[in-house]
Amino acid sequence: MGNLEIELPSWAFGNSGTRFKVFGTPGTPRTVQEKIADAATVHQFTGLAPSVALHIPWDEVPDYRALRVYAEDLGVRVGTINSNTFQDDSYKFGSLTHLDKKVRRTAIDHHLACIEVMNATGSADLKIWLADGTNYPGQGDIRDRQERLAESLASIYEHIGDQQRMVLEYKFFEPATYMTDVPDWGTAYTHVAALGERAVVCLDTGHHAPGTNIEFIVAQLLRLQKLGSFDFNSRFYADDDLIVGAADPFQLFRIMVEVIRGGGLDDDSGVALMLDQCHNVEAKIPGQIRSVLNVQEMTARAALLDSEALAEAQRAGDVLGAHDVFMDAFYTDVRPRLAQWRAERGLPEDPMAAFARSGYQQRIEAERLEGTQSGWGA
Amino acid sequence: MGNLEIELPSWAFGNSGTRFKVFGTPGTPRTVQEKIADAATVHQFTGLAPSVALHIPWDEVPDYRALRVYAEDLGVRVGTINSNTFQDDSYKFGSLTHLDKKVRRTAIDHHLACIEVMNATGSADLKIWLADGTNYPGQGDIRDRQERLAESLASIYEHIGDQQRMVLEYKFFEPATYMTDVPDWGTAYTHVAALGERAVVCLDTGHHAPGTNIEFIVAQLLRLQKLGSFDFNSRFYADDDLIVGAADPFQLFRIMVEVIRGGGLDDDSGVALMLDQCHNVEAKIPGQIRSVLNVQEMTARAALLDSEALAEAQRAGDVLGAHDVFMDAFYTDVRPRLAQWRAERGLPEDPMAAFARSGYQQRIEAERLEGTQSGWGA
Amino acid sequence: MGNLEIELPSWAFGNSGTRFKVFGTPGTPRTVQEKIADAATVHQFTGLAPSVALHIPWDEVPDYRALRVYAEDLGVRVGTINSNTFQDDSYKFGSLTHLDKKVRRTAIDHHLACIEVMNATGSADLKIWLADGTNYPGQGDIRDRQERLAESLASIYEHIGDQQRMVLEYKFFEPATYMTDVPDWGTAYTHVAALGERAVVCLDTGHHAPGTNIEFIVAQLLRLQKLGSFDFNSRFYADDDLIVGAADPFQLFRIMVEVIRGGGLDDDSGVALMLDQCHNVEAKIPGQIRSVLNVQEMTARAALLDSEALAEAQRAGDVLGAHDVFMDAFYTDVRPRLAQWRAERGLPEDPMAAFARSGYQQRIEAERLEGTQSGWGA
Amino acid sequence: MGNLEIELPSWAFGNSGTRFKVFGTPGTPRTVQEKIADAATVHQFTGLAPSVALHIPWDEVPDYRALRVYAEDLGVRVGTINSNTFQDDSYKFGSLTHLDKKVRRTAIDHHLACIEVMNATGSADLKIWLADGTNYPGQGDIRDRQERLAESLASIYEHIGDQQRMVLEYKFFEPATYMTDVPDWGTAYTHVAALGERAVVCLDTGHHAPGTNIEFIVAQLLRLQKLGSFDFNSRFYADDDLIVGAADPFQLFRIMVEVIRGGGLDDDSGVALMLDQCHNVEAKIPGQIRSVLNVQEMTARAALLDSEALAEAQRAGDVLGAHDVFMDAFYTDVRPRLAQWRAERGLPEDPMAAFARSGYQQRIEAERLEGTQSGWGA
Repeated sequence: MGNLEIELPSWAFGNSGTRFKVFGTPGTPRTVQEKIADAATVHQFTGLAPSVALHIPWDEVPDYRALRVYAEDLGVRVGTINSNTFQDDSYKFGSLTHLDKKVRRTAIDHHLACIEVMNATGSADLKIWLADGTNYPGQGDIRDRQERLAESLASIYEHIGDQQRMVLEYKFFEPATYMTDVPDWGTAYTHVAALGERAVVCLDTGHHAPGTNIEFIVAQLLRLQKLGSFDFNSRFYADDDLIVGAADPFQLFRIMVEVIRGGGLDDDSGVALMLDQCHNVEAKIPGQIRSVLNVQEMTARAALLDSEALAEAQRAGDVLGAHDVFMDAFYTDVRPRLAQWRAERGLPEDPMAAFARSGYQQRIEAERLEGTQSGWGA
Repeated sequence: MGNLEIELPSWAFGNSGTRFKVFGTPGTPRTVQEKIADAATVHQFTGLAPSVALHIPWDEVPDYRALRVYAEDLGVRVGTINSNTFQDDSYKFGSLTHLDKKVRRTAIDHHLACIEVMNATGSADLKIWLADGTNYPGQGDIRDRQERLAESLASIYEHIGDQQRMVLEYKFFEPATYMTDVPDWGTAYTHVAALGERAVVCLDTGHHAPGTNIEFIVAQLLRLQKLGSFDFNSRFYADDDLIVGAADPFQLFRIMVEVIRGGGLDDDSGVALMLDQCHNVEAKIPGQIRSVLNVQEMTARAALLDSEALAEAQRAGDVLGAHDVFMDAFYTDVRPRLAQWRAERGLPEDPMAAFARSGYQQRIEAERLEGTQSGWGA
Repeated sequence: MGNLEIELPSWAFGNSGTRFKVFGTPGTPRTVQEKIADAATVHQFTGLAPSVALHIPWDEVPDYRALRVYAEDLGVRVGTINSNTFQDDSYKFGSLTHLDKKVRRTAIDHHLACIEVMNATGSADLKIWLADGTNYPGQGDIRDRQERLAESLASIYEHIGDQQRMVLEYKFFEPATYMTDVPDWGTAYTHVAALGERAVVCLDTGHHAPGTNIEFIVAQLLRLQKLGSFDFNSRFYADDDLIVGAADPFQLFRIMVEVIRGGGLDDDSGVALMLDQCHNVEAKIPGQIRSVLNVQEMTARAALLDSEALAEAQRAGDVLGAHDVFMDAFYTDVRPRLAQWRAERGLPEDPMAAFARSGYQQRIEAERLEGTQSGWGA
Repeated sequence: MGNLEIELPSWAFGNSGTRFKVFGTPGTPRTVQEKIADAATVHQFTGLAPSVALHIPWDEVPDYRALRVYAEDLGVRVGTINSNTFQDDSYKFGSLTHLDKKVRRTAIDHHLACIEVMNATGSADLKIWLADGTNYPGQGDIRDRQERLAESLASIYEHIGDQQRMVLEYKFFEPATYMTDVPDWGTAYTHVAALGERAVVCLDTGHHAPGTNIEFIVAQLLRLQKLGSFDFNSRFYADDDLIVGAADPFQLFRIMVEVIRGGGLDDDSGVALMLDQCHNVEAKIPGQIRSVLNVQEMTARAALLDSEALAEAQRAGDVLGAHDVFMDAFYTDVRPRLAQWRAERGLPEDPMAAFARSGYQQRIEAERLEGTQSGWGA
């Protein structure tokens, strides 16, 4: 538990919404610096979130070295660099998979530029999530698109530094409605396995078909040594991007059990935990605080699991006994001991209440009046 | 078949997209008049789409009587009026269900204004789709929201004229991620049943949980005499709003079989067929032409069903025989006879090709240069 | 909480399985009396399960009055009577919906016989779950089947006594693969609403499409005064019939919140809580003990919900605050106070451990050697 | 099209059902010889089904060489050998993944015995579908089970002959309700990739989560050269095992398009097409005839696809044009030309009608009176 770190996405502090409406809120950051300041605030109140993921071009700045210093001065560092190949008009029919070589080249070059950002900011991971896909049967050639994807990824991977990683994310559907080019962990896995050691998979907890056993995939990718990172969030229906743990805390617990079981929290594991959420109707900074606390709580419950008692019940074929050992860890209220953990570190025992009392929200609402609020999507 | 009419939604001609990106396209209408002109063009090439649904406030004009005349001059009429209570900032936490009486009043008044539009345009149906719902457990009181919904609907229903109908649409999820206030046909049905005869249900074919047998609901609502209208579209995953029949033509066939079976195409049925689609990556006018042709084709196949042979096989417990009779209708290629039907009426035999040849698209791309393209959502 | 009662299904003590295999276990009851003895044991260790549901013909006996006395002597009473119209060869194509009047008559008569069992045992509820449905499009006429269903139900309802209820269960799919005749709460509701006051709906928590918000249905049926009873179990994929609360304890919590919110635990509510589960690989009696404890635990957590604080946060539009109040109740470990509740009533503080120590299981394994183990299904 | 061959499963001719009920039917085979005779009849009427898959131990015989001769005398050959590790009491908690080495040994030995059957019958493929999995979180160690699975598979693979293949099937859920040990194509793929060239994946069209794009997996496995075979059937909800093409013929068409696109029907493709279905309520032999005809029809429609026109529309970014080319192939009625194809080969033009007229069904109903009807499952 001591080394639990959860990366925050810069875009969680900007406005977000659905295709129907994006609501604005007072105090929303207008610059990447303001997003980083908000993220640093989450870290200050929780002690759990020492890095911030950036999204290019949303977080483009002229001087990335200065941005790095800015972040470090606030006590956080720049984390994963996320590329974006879904908002240019040229990407209407794909990016790394596009039929037109020129569009693919543009998309590849964008990733090379992201690697430059990594070099300047000290970021170790390039995360690739593709909106590539098709809406109608017949619209694209599934097979050819895979070949072009493999080729494009290889072109990018060549430029990944020795201490850097390429992290490939998969997604079941959306924005494409018929086929996405990297729909499942199997596809992401076969691509990164073909590339090499520094290519790994990102598992976004909201990107699966209904009923998918996500902790199985966690266990499998850890077994195959290809689980690079998590994008945490939760969902009831589609890719809802709700606060992690909000929709099904028991699922988050099961996932953390497998992460621990597979060594994912060990010092050298290389598994990065990141949030990827939207705060469409709730407050953003407290939303992020709640999220990192949820991950911490479920990790703490998972850490309580009595592995020996569990193994013994499993060996005995005692289904109910094993299940009871499992549930006992989940049902134990860890909040008091986490409050103590925080107190010992000079952190507020109740980060949500402490933030509310801090006046930070009132201050940014007063200060951030002009300019355009950050956002994503359309 | 002779009286098949499919209403077009004005917004299908505007830009649409996902929360990630809305792509613009040359020739997109900038005014409601241009949308109506495009809709009239679809009717001109297909002979199937004599009415256009409007969406308020997207299609607001100072003079609705003039708009009615404009449409009629182009050979179409104004159809269903769709209200919108999801894009005002005041509706962030609901409209007709909102805790705050003032917000509910605003939402009710908006519907009364829509009824005024109906009175001016000759529209018979007020369609209510609500984005109301909650994203997190605990966010709202499910029960209280139902009571407020019932009260608000009653306030609107009072103003529905003798020759008008209130049509209540249900939706499984989106934009709300945890709970929608009218999630299923049962909820829509119990509300309209409580209101009276002129309140009916709208079935949007994309608004159901995975695996839902939609034709069963069609049959049930027809049996209960509460099927008011269809919002046609198709889906692979969520509410994809794809071209009707594109994702699962056999499902569309089964739906049309039940519509015919239940008298939904009879002269006095009161079942209105409407499209409700997005054309995110495909051309909009041909997208609408393709859609009405798809409905016509599957209706024609459904009309081929040999009901007597089917009933006889059913009586004999001959599962395969009955299924074969059913599939025979689906598998028969009706396109030649529909081409002939069109030729007999002076319509182009191949409406898609005829439109492509017509120069209409080129003309609107040349003419519609300035101003803001119509769109929806954000 | 004081009046929480959970009915046990007699068949949970018999063998069950999948279409692939039914595993037998030592000690499985061979008679209805042995099932009742096991159920009484669950009550003895938990104080929560004072009644046993029977399934006819699985639990047929020559003298039901004697069976009632037998149960009462063991400290339990006979609960719901469940009919069975899915195991006779005549029901291959339906029962209450069958095309053949003779088969319908047989099915109706079976229900009248069940009412006689109710009269003799003092049971108040007749529960009807139908396996009726079709496997292939075209196999049956959806609409006609509804009419025959309505007629058959009316024939049965006539015989329901003044102090008795007819409880109609719905199920999304299985065993029928294309269409079930009572697939959703809307269909069950419209049928019981047409019958009268003593006809109500049974909500089986495993009988919904993926993603369905079940607590919404609970709230809605309570609002409509038609929630008759629950069949509790849990599921990951289909109708898994797992131990209630095992797959998603948070969902069970949310359901119990709505039950309490809607008055479902009030003295006069008429909402009966029942288990309907399979114990395919786990021990049956402990499986039932665990199940009633799970319902008690989640009810206790739901009862902790601070409704005033919740309402205040809702009024303030404080999404995170409301959600936190909600989650605080869920996250609180109620096990110590439930142990105390049991101690105060002379019940074992840890019913699972106490049962394991009791020697009951060893005794029945030694005694129940000859004869045929009870089971269900094939 | 000329070389289309569809393997029939011997068990499709036996009784099958759900956990609720297995209905018997007159004429059901009592021996493997009678099943083969029925399968040969399907081939005789369709010319498409020259091989029969066997299931061990359901189809155990003392002399497999004699069985081979028996089959060949009837004009068919023995195809895939399917192992069974789900009906022995020892497999309650797994087979190849079982914690107990002795149980794993039993399961491995069963597969070696199946290889002996292959050697004797000339069968080339050993198909492994595992019911292994767990019903409750905590019941088993996901990771350890994977390692044991890998080890067990390796022990079997060693014995696979040079001209034989091991085909590993995956399944999303059932009979296990929480976790299956080979739930998805990614898991099956990583296991067979670790084994070697003669290990490949079996794709059962009914074994995926709701909404899964199956044709994508087809394309991907063909690309990775690991698509060994299909188990064809169709589904609305779970693993319904309905007649292939009955639930969603357009999906079957799309699958066949990808099979052809990826070379799966080429002479040397190694992709075996097999049915794996249940006929719970419909007649079995006609059910199989209908199934092979469905595969043939959708393959014929897929073969009509104008690849050049499609590629051109794709290159032009003409979404609707490409989709129209695609749908044109699907919508074309190929039944007349397939009737002609049959006539040219001396086959009945309408195999369903010819079988009904043939008297075969009446003969087996008269002859197969004593003995026990074949079945599967419980």
